Amino acid sequence: MTISLHAASVPVFSQMLNSLSAILHKAEAHAAEKNIEPTVFLQARLSPDMFPLLRQVQIAADFARGVSARLAGLEVPKVEDSQQSFADCQALIAFSLDFIQAIAPEQINGKEQREIVTRPGTPKERRFNGQAYLLTYGIPQFFFHVTTAYAILRHNGVELGKKDYMGAY
Amino acid sequence: MTISLHAASVPVFSQMLNSLSAILHKAEAHAAEKNIEPTVFLQARLSPDMFPLLRQVQIAADFARGVSARLAGLEVPKVEDSQQSFADCQALIAFSLDFIQAIAPEQINGKEQREIVTRPGTPKERRFNGQAYLLTYGIPQFFFHVTTAYAILRHNGVELGKKDYMGAY
Repeated sequence: MTISLHAASVPVFSQMLNSLSAILHKAEAHAAEKNIEPTVFLQARLSPDMFPLLRQVQIAADFARGVSARLAGLEVPKVEDSQQSFADCQALIAFSLDFIQAIAPEQINGKEQREIVTRPGTPKERRFNGQAYLLTYGIPQFFFHVTTAYAILRHNGVELGKKDYMGAY
Repeated sequence: MTISLHAASVPVFSQMLNSLSAILHKAEAHAAEKNIEPTVFLQARLSPDMFPLLRQVQIAADFARGVSARLAGLEVPKVEDSQQSFADCQALIAFSLDFIQAIAPEQINGKEQREIVTRPGTPKERRFNGQAYLLTYGIPQFFFHVTTAYAILRHNGVELGKKDYMGAY
């Protein structure tokens, strides 16, 4: 018995995108209740040279779509980073969930040795096989942005706990 | 071709514990350079009801040891949470790396269906098979604490970048 490449990717991303969605709903409700402009949260950051919440959400969703698509050998869907509101973030997450959940396990499984090239043609070009791409690159990157989104909201007083981060598991 | 349970656990934890160690070395050097008490960083938190850096490091290392041990069916090593300094944190990470890297792949592989019970006998008791325990619980928990440690240091002005978080991959 071993783990399938699909089991280690799409369901993991789905669990955390769903929890991110729920976290953002709580943040939006908190902003409304306290009569705080949603932008205060969406543009909040932990350090002047770190990305704000909105961008953390965009990047987390981007990694979920991009990693899943590359593992399946599909074209990475082009998405404009035009989100400005909590509703836009929810729509982006919903689109990303629909995209990755439409990938059948058979499209990903067996692709552990598929060569994946990131940032091709740039000085940062890296070549991975599918397994290394997911485990050493995609998963750490994805969790970074989901956790940072949570951390920004906690730092700004939204009442969240580890249970919200973990989602349904 | 599929992923082995070992490949999805021990090397992932190792990559990130090594990066956490390097991040803490940078934080210690930063504190020394700016003549700031190390405790200022070790006790820093993003919110009054979140754990400080020191505890984030302890919990990250604890998940790496505990998840790896449970997957292998080994006793989880008892470690006192007595760390107080950057040096103590480094020793804890080194011990944790030694422990997980001493587990042979054969001790973990094939245990995808092993039943793992967390918080047994408590209202929070949960039963998982090995694969679900790793992918839906252990990995998200581990990355939460590594990323939060990084976020605390970035928030407190330590010069770190995504490269430091990703480590050697």
